[in-house]
Amino acid sequence: MAIKPILFEDGICRMIDQRLLPAEELWRDYRDDGAIAEAIRTMVVRGAPAIGIAAAYGAAFAAAALASQSLPVAERLHQFRQRCQHLAATRPTAVNLFWALARMERLAEATSALAPLDWAAGLRQEACRIDAEDELINRAMGRHGQALLSQQGTVLTHCNAGALATGGYGTALGVIRAAIEAGKQIDVVADETRPFWQGARLTAWELQRDGIDVTLICDNMAGYLMQQGRIDAVIVGADRISANGDVANKIGTYSVAVLAQAHGIPFYVAAPRSTIDLSLADGSAIPIEERDPREVTHCGNQQLAPAGVAVYNPAFDVTPARLVSAIITEVGVARADYRTQLAELMARPPLCGHV
Amino acid sequence: MAIKPILFEDGICRMIDQRLLPAEELWRDYRDDGAIAEAIRTMVVRGAPAIGIAAAYGAAFAAAALASQSLPVAERLHQFRQRCQHLAATRPTAVNLFWALARMERLAEATSALAPLDWAAGLRQEACRIDAEDELINRAMGRHGQALLSQQGTVLTHCNAGALATGGYGTALGVIRAAIEAGKQIDVVADETRPFWQGARLTAWELQRDGIDVTLICDNMAGYLMQQGRIDAVIVGADRISANGDVANKIGTYSVAVLAQAHGIPFYVAAPRSTIDLSLADGSAIPIEERDPREVTHCGNQQLAPAGVAVYNPAFDVTPARLVSAIITEVGVARADYRTQLAELMARPPLCGHV
Repeated sequence: MAIKPILFEDGICRMIDQRLLPAEELWRDYRDDGAIAEAIRTMVVRGAPAIGIAAAYGAAFAAAALASQSLPVAERLHQFRQRCQHLAATRPTAVNLFWALARMERLAEATSALAPLDWAAGLRQEACRIDAEDELINRAMGRHGQALLSQQGTVLTHCNAGALATGGYGTALGVIRAAIEAGKQIDVVADETRPFWQGARLTAWELQRDGIDVTLICDNMAGYLMQQGRIDAVIVGADRISANGDVANKIGTYSVAVLAQAHGIPFYVAAPRSTIDLSLADGSAIPIEERDPREVTHCGNQQLAPAGVAVYNPAFDVTPARLVSAIITEVGVARADYRTQLAELMARPPLCGHV
Repeated sequence: MAIKPILFEDGICRMIDQRLLPAEELWRDYRDDGAIAEAIRTMVVRGAPAIGIAAAYGAAFAAAALASQSLPVAERLHQFRQRCQHLAATRPTAVNLFWALARMERLAEATSALAPLDWAAGLRQEACRIDAEDELINRAMGRHGQALLSQQGTVLTHCNAGALATGGYGTALGVIRAAIEAGKQIDVVADETRPFWQGARLTAWELQRDGIDVTLICDNMAGYLMQQGRIDAVIVGADRISANGDVANKIGTYSVAVLAQAHGIPFYVAAPRSTIDLSLADGSAIPIEERDPREVTHCGNQQLAPAGVAVYNPAFDVTPARLVSAIITEVGVARADYRTQLAELMARPPLCGHV
C-alpha cells in the first residue's frame, strides 16, 4: 500500500515532513491556513497535486476560522478570498495549487448563503473530496498509462511524481504501480534530482518501501544509460501543462526529454487534468520559480561551493510538446496534436462526479 | 596566477587535497610511490593530466628507493616496472596516467646502465619535466583554443578541467583563461558535477580565485540554460580520446554534448596529446571506472538516499566524435574527420622537445 502523505483526521491535517525523508518519518500537525502556507512554501509538502490538496485543507481551515467570527457574508467571503490568495502566493509554477483554491472559492461563493458553520463544514468536505478524488484519479491514470508500457522494461523517472507528490498512489509512479499490478515486470531508474534530491530521498524511499526495483543515479548519468540501451521509457509528472502540450516540470525534465528523443525512447507525462492550464497557449507564459542559492551551494549544513559564488537555481523547466510522446490523464491519453487532443480530454465528464 | 596543485620541492611532492576544497586548503606531503598511488585512488589528486604528473613523481620515488638498494640492473628494472604497475592500477579510464608511466619506464630502460643514483636522478628530472611541460602545453592549448571563442560569450564547462586538474593553467579552463588574457569577455557556467562535485567545489573555487565570472548550476539545469540561449559554447577536458575522436570524460559529459548539439551550440574538447590513445579504434574499448555507491547516497556523512538502495555510479562516459565540434591540443585543433586529423596532429614534433 503506497504511502499517503497528507491525512485529515479529527479536524487536524497531518503531513509527513518530506524534507526529512528518508532519514526520519516525522508527521506534523496543521490546524490553520497560515501554517499550511508555510509548509507549502518550505516544501514540507511538495508535488503539484499534493500542494493543491494541502492548500484545499488550508482554505478549509480559513473558512472554519472565519465562520467562528460574526462577519457579514460579503466580508467573510472577502477575507476568505484573501486567505486563499495567501495560500496561492506560496509557489508560482504548479497550477494545481490555483486549481484547488479556485474550486474552494467557487464553492464558498455558491454556498455563501448557508449558516457560517454549515458553510465551513461544506468547505471542509470539499477539501476532503479533492484529496480522496486525487487518489482515484491517479489509479485511473495508472490504468490508462500502464497500457503504454511493455511487458518488461526499465523506466526512468525524474523527481518524485509518486504517492508522496499526490493524495496517494502517484502520477508517474502510479503508472508504474499499475503496470506492476497488471503483471508487468518493470524496474525503475530514479534520477536523484538536484538540488532538492526528490529522486534520491523520496522516489527511492517510496519505491523501496513498496518492494519495487529501483536504481538510483545522478541526474547526469541518464544520457549514458540511454546510450547503453538500458532505458525503455521515461515517465515524469508535471506541474503545469499549457494548451499546446508544453510541460512545466521539475528542473532537469527538459534535459531528460531531449536525451530521450535523441535515443528514440518514448517520453511520457502523467498528470491529472487539474494540471492542464488551457488559459496558456504555450509554455512560455508559465512562471518558473527560482529558489534559494543555498539549495545548490549547501547539502544540509555542509558547504559545497565557495562562499559568495553566483548561483542560478530555477526549480522548473518547460519541455516543449514536440518532445512529449503522450500525456496520460485520468480520462485518457493525449498525443500530438495536443491542442486538439487536450481540449477534447478536458471537455470529457469528470471522473468522480465532482472534478 | 592560477593554482598549481602539485609541487615538487626538496625531494617532497606536495599536493593540495582536492577532496577538502573549497572548505580547506590542505597540502599533503608525499615521499613514496605507495602513498602517491593511494592519493590517486582516493582522489586527493584528480584530473587526467594531474594524475599523470602525480604518477610520474611516484615512479621517481620508486626509482630513488630502488637505487638505494644493491640490486642487479635487471632486477631493479623489474621491480621498477612492478611499482609502476601498482601506480597504474589506481584508476582505469584516464590514459595520461599510463602515458606518463610509460614515459618513465622508457627512460628507466634507456638509462639503466647508469649508476643507480644517477639513474634515479634522471627519472626525478623526467617527472619534473612532465610536470613543467604540462603547464606549457596547456598555455599552447589555450592559444589555439581561445581563437574558437567569440569576443564575448558564456561558456559552459563540466567537471574541473582547470589548473587543479593539470600541472597548472588547465585544459578547458586554460582555453577560457587564454581567451580572457586575449581581451575577450568570457563568463563561465559551471555544472556542479555530481557525485564528486568537481564543478561546485573545484571549478567554482579556482575561477573565483582568479576573478573569472562563474555561475554555478546543477547538472540538470544545463539544458534549460541552452534552451534560453544563454550558453554560447561548451568546453570540457578529456580522460581518453580514441583514434576516431570519441571522448571519454567525466560522467555527464555525454549528456551535455547531446544537449549542445540539439541547441546548435559548439562542443569543444581541450586535451593534451597525451590524452589521445591511437591504440583504440573507437571509444567502445575505453574502460569506464565504476566507483563506490556511497558517493551517490551520501554527502559527507549525511545520508541522502534510503539505506540499501541500488546505485549505479559510473565515473565517466564516452561522447561519440559526431557530437564533438573540435578537439583542441597543444599543437593545433582537430575537427572531423578525426581519424585523419588526430593522426596528423599526433605526428607533429613535440612542443617542448621532450614530449
